[in-house]
Amino acid sequence: MLSALDLARRIEAGALTPAAAVDLCATAIAAREADIGAFAALDIDRARRQAEASAAALKSTPLRGLPAGVKDIFDTADFPTGYGSPIYADHRPPADAAAVSMLRRAGGLVLGKTVTTEFAHQQPAKTKNPRNLAHTPGGSSSGSAAAVAAGMAPIAIGTQTGGSVIRPAAFCGVAGFKPSYRLLPTVGSKCFSWSLDTVGLFAASVADVAFAAAGISGRDLRVDQAATAAPSLALVRTRIWDEASGEMQSAVETAARAAAALGARVEEHTLPEIAEEAWRLHPLIMAYEAFRAFAFEYDHHRDKLGPMLRDMLDHAAGISAEDYDAARRATKRARHAVNELLEGKFILTPSAPGAAPRGLGSTGEPIFNRLWTLMGTPCVNVPGLLDDSGLPLGVQIVGRFGRDRVTLAAAAFVEAAIARAK
Amino acid sequence: MLSALDLARRIEAGALTPAAAVDLCATAIAAREADIGAFAALDIDRARRQAEASAAALKSTPLRGLPAGVKDIFDTADFPTGYGSPIYADHRPPADAAAVSMLRRAGGLVLGKTVTTEFAHQQPAKTKNPRNLAHTPGGSSSGSAAAVAAGMAPIAIGTQTGGSVIRPAAFCGVAGFKPSYRLLPTVGSKCFSWSLDTVGLFAASVADVAFAAAGISGRDLRVDQAATAAPSLALVRTRIWDEASGEMQSAVETAARAAAALGARVEEHTLPEIAEEAWRLHPLIMAYEAFRAFAFEYDHHRDKLGPMLRDMLDHAAGISAEDYDAARRATKRARHAVNELLEGKFILTPSAPGAAPRGLGSTGEPIFNRLWTLMGTPCVNVPGLLDDSGLPLGVQIVGRFGRDRVTLAAAAFVEAAIARAK
Repeated sequence: MLSALDLARRIEAGALTPAAAVDLCATAIAAREADIGAFAALDIDRARRQAEASAAALKSTPLRGLPAGVKDIFDTADFPTGYGSPIYADHRPPADAAAVSMLRRAGGLVLGKTVTTEFAHQQPAKTKNPRNLAHTPGGSSSGSAAAVAAGMAPIAIGTQTGGSVIRPAAFCGVAGFKPSYRLLPTVGSKCFSWSLDTVGLFAASVADVAFAAAGISGRDLRVDQAATAAPSLALVRTRIWDEASGEMQSAVETAARAAAALGARVEEHTLPEIAEEAWRLHPLIMAYEAFRAFAFEYDHHRDKLGPMLRDMLDHAAGISAEDYDAARRATKRARHAVNELLEGKFILTPSAPGAAPRGLGSTGEPIFNRLWTLMGTPCVNVPGLLDDSGLPLGVQIVGRFGRDRVTLAAAAFVEAAIARAK
Repeated sequence: MLSALDLARRIEAGALTPAAAVDLCATAIAAREADIGAFAALDIDRARRQAEASAAALKSTPLRGLPAGVKDIFDTADFPTGYGSPIYADHRPPADAAAVSMLRRAGGLVLGKTVTTEFAHQQPAKTKNPRNLAHTPGGSSSGSAAAVAAGMAPIAIGTQTGGSVIRPAAFCGVAGFKPSYRLLPTVGSKCFSWSLDTVGLFAASVADVAFAAAGISGRDLRVDQAATAAPSLALVRTRIWDEASGEMQSAVETAARAAAALGARVEEHTLPEIAEEAWRLHPLIMAYEAFRAFAFEYDHHRDKLGPMLRDMLDHAAGISAEDYDAARRATKRARHAVNELLEGKFILTPSAPGAAPRGLGSTGEPIFNRLWTLMGTPCVNVPGLLDDSGLPLGVQIVGRFGRDRVTLAAAAFVEAAIARAK
């Protein structure tokens, strides 16, 4: 994998040019893209030209001219934007999405558009898991996670409405960061659910993803390992703990022990009843909003929707405003309860039910992600653990809403503890 | 003006066809559009063809085939969509915005796109006030308010980020409804500020706008005058009362007396300190988000931006994330305080500083609207009062977040009280 932080430091020191960083990506793409299929559109030459044309200026930008993959759910004026749907096969938006413009303002170069599942829902696309091509990379940000895992890009942008950042990051063995709701704007990305859609990021390690988030957002999010105190962790198994594989259960416990060995305080916690209940509300809120967000596609191109999305929208047509409103009110109460639990501590919990499932017919289950998307809390997938077959097992650190910097720092602490315990 | 409710009842009773309703609009458009300039694009023939082709089916839809104007800030697949900016002069979006699809699902026919100021900001466009062509119609939903006021459409859709629904409704003497934040989705409208942009509606009277809102949202929002109890009103002058004209101050007091005479309880209230302060935070939050929402236009087409928007964005570049976050936290506290004040009552306050100012160089000031947009509360402009020169003076009813139906009912009560007091 390409470490964004390492590349940026070498560019800063004059030991690497932005164009040479593009070439590192190009080499990995030449070697692996044909097998993995992480990109929906790619223009290495343009990225290299941009890198060469502005080499001096890029050197002093926050992202130092690093190349990045952008999930094909974001509008781009200079790349086709298909949203993973045949309805938008020839779509050329007139403008870049806000997050893409922010990446470019920060000195990032767009290498290509990464594969998304259909409209960032569950219908799998062509991407395979770089760790084992017979396994799903997860979804919906399949291409972004796979591109980083295969060393084809040091940074990639994705989105999460259910578990679409944390799950593919876990399956592909990279760091994934779902910031607090709206820390990064969704403007110019294809909306699935306006109260859930969240822009997130992928990079090799937690420090790398924090570096990318700091650059794009212009916020103080960078992780300073040396200055990070040992965090207080709440090991939360949740009521669906039995749906996690034995290896995933062990991974969470291993992470907890490793963190404790480095000085972290670790206690078991149960979620407030209202939060456990809120987990069930996510699909209702998502479907009610999707039926309106995709009204045009559903009303005019229903035959071009994949069966998983079409079935979901068929069902969504019957959800009442009263049920939606009640779910939103319960969500608000759950947020208060979760906020209280997270005062002064971070939750440690699975990123997914297990390692990436074998086969490409499903992108896996977002059951360990939905609640946190609904709560709007920052989440980080911490990579580093493997199952017996060598597939990654990701553990998740969840922080309080708006406390993104310290959540990233806590995740970096756990990542270092896991590495040291090996 | 064309009453949406009256037309719908006549269509339901078989006394009017949807095509004949289109013809009523066409007659007013032929007579007045050349002077007023409410439309950016218009296709009366298509609306008439749609009305004729589906006459029987439309008759049983919630909106009964009524024609509507749609602010040109919403994407439409079958009309050009310019957002009031030369940057998008030839733009043809691939899909309808969610609110437009919802209007069509409910049996509304899109007659045309109504004029918006540039990107729904302050730079005035071509529209004139139907009540007096020498005066501004207000903005940014200038065309929507003017089209309804001139009887050219019974329903029009707009948006409010500062005061862009309530102010033009007040200036043009029509009912304007800014629902609770996100009651109607902004998906597919050009984003100015993601935490403030709110979809709103215009119609001849409060009952008409409630009928339109009920149809489009699929919610129980219709006003039943007979079943409405006299509301409890809080007359709130706010700290900027002195910036309201003498005639506007009298209008608010006249509305209060008229409501009291019909049985409403009316008490003077001051806003909580935190809410008075929050008023000042609105421009900061709006500008911080706009600098990101318009990143592509600012970075690539700065020369094609109008001077008012360009200056605002130049200034916005310097707003820090810390100041933005602090403003968001203060907003949250103010919402709690306003919510408490609004328990069991409705605020009565000016819709604008006065009647529509003379001249077309400014769309007027949103100072009596910003706080309520920031609070996310439902607001209704109640028409019916006039100044000495015959220009409309609008008063505003503000309700608790999520209590849209009773807020519309309270506004209808005040509207009836004003009419009876004349």
